[in-house]
Amino acid sequence: MKDARLEQQIRFLLEIDQLKQVERRSYLADGSRRENSAEHSWHLAMMAVLLCEHLDDPGIDLLRVMKMLLIHDLVEIDAGDTYAYDPQGQEDKYDRELACANRLFRLLPEEQRDELMALWQEFEEGISPEAKYAAALDRLQPMLLNYAAQGRSWREHGIHSRQVLARQEAIAEVSQKLGDYSRGLIQDAVAKGYLKAQG
Amino acid sequence: MKDARLEQQIRFLLEIDQLKQVERRSYLADGSRRENSAEHSWHLAMMAVLLCEHLDDPGIDLLRVMKMLLIHDLVEIDAGDTYAYDPQGQEDKYDRELACANRLFRLLPEEQRDELMALWQEFEEGISPEAKYAAALDRLQPMLLNYAAQGRSWREHGIHSRQVLARQEAIAEVSQKLGDYSRGLIQDAVAKGYLKAQG
Repeated sequence: MKDARLEQQIRFLLEIDQLKQVERRSYLADGSRRENSAEHSWHLAMMAVLLCEHLDDPGIDLLRVMKMLLIHDLVEIDAGDTYAYDPQGQEDKYDRELACANRLFRLLPEEQRDELMALWQEFEEGISPEAKYAAALDRLQPMLLNYAAQGRSWREHGIHSRQVLARQEAIAEVSQKLGDYSRGLIQDAVAKGYLKAQG
Repeated sequence: MKDARLEQQIRFLLEIDQLKQVERRSYLADGSRRENSAEHSWHLAMMAVLLCEHLDDPGIDLLRVMKMLLIHDLVEIDAGDTYAYDPQGQEDKYDRELACANRLFRLLPEEQRDELMALWQEFEEGISPEAKYAAALDRLQPMLLNYAAQGRSWREHGIHSRQVLARQEAIAEVSQKLGDYSRGLIQDAVAKGYLKAQG
């Protein structure tokens, strides 16, 4: 006998398999290939578990952060990954992503659709401590990969340290320690020629 | 100023980036390429969130399940993915994986090392409700992908329905509903020629 809720959930779970085919700009740490958004989401959830002690205000709901990170990029399935340093792509990013969120989450039973939509919107609004922590990790992770891959993606796109420093502010906002660390990483990246100075 | 704990954590987070390069036997749902263990882990964590209502005994700690699923395959970084239907590979699997767990988790600060090692061992032992749910999802997910990809991986390895049914028992053990669903999927797969009957 078919269970309607389970059928909807399985349909959704197969649909989101496509996140594994959304290519990001960042390369893996060893520079061998570009990262995809599904493995990126896994990496962020691992970071959320291990780095939460460094938050200035550690009173967060880690489970909510993890759910948020697992779903935050699902909207790229239709909208594609919009490069952080592409001002034109950023313009209509929200509209494209909202259309995808509506399509995907509607596959689910009603209260799960509402939960995931609310989590995604919380992430996009970036106001709650959980959303801010998730956003900070989403900025820190590509920096770590870019640095490990000797700035390959930064160099390919002619990125300057000022652009990376501007994105880094979201990290310092939730954690002085992670903020200091990421600023140091950017300085190091400039010193090693992975990233252009100023700009 | 360098923070020793943070340096250890970042070192670990970059080391586990390699999970993105561990190739599994399953193909993506559209059959286009093999899945890797990092995106597989992401997919399982998503399943854990959405399917927990179907557990016969729903009193589980979802956060622990999710952590367990995110880390359960890290040991493949050194040990490789051992195919579920490879009896020879299964023989020394635990020893190879334990050596990797020791190497990887020792990169972390002591209490995080202990937490992750305990979670991995809990998963391996498969006794707690959380470990059983995690194991059930780890069996269900490749079935869903294999079915969606018209049995490509099953056919490549000459797998019979009896072998898949035997692995499916871990699903029925935690959830009658998921057990019924996966048995139905196997019957359908045989009917459609994705999977050999009996064997």
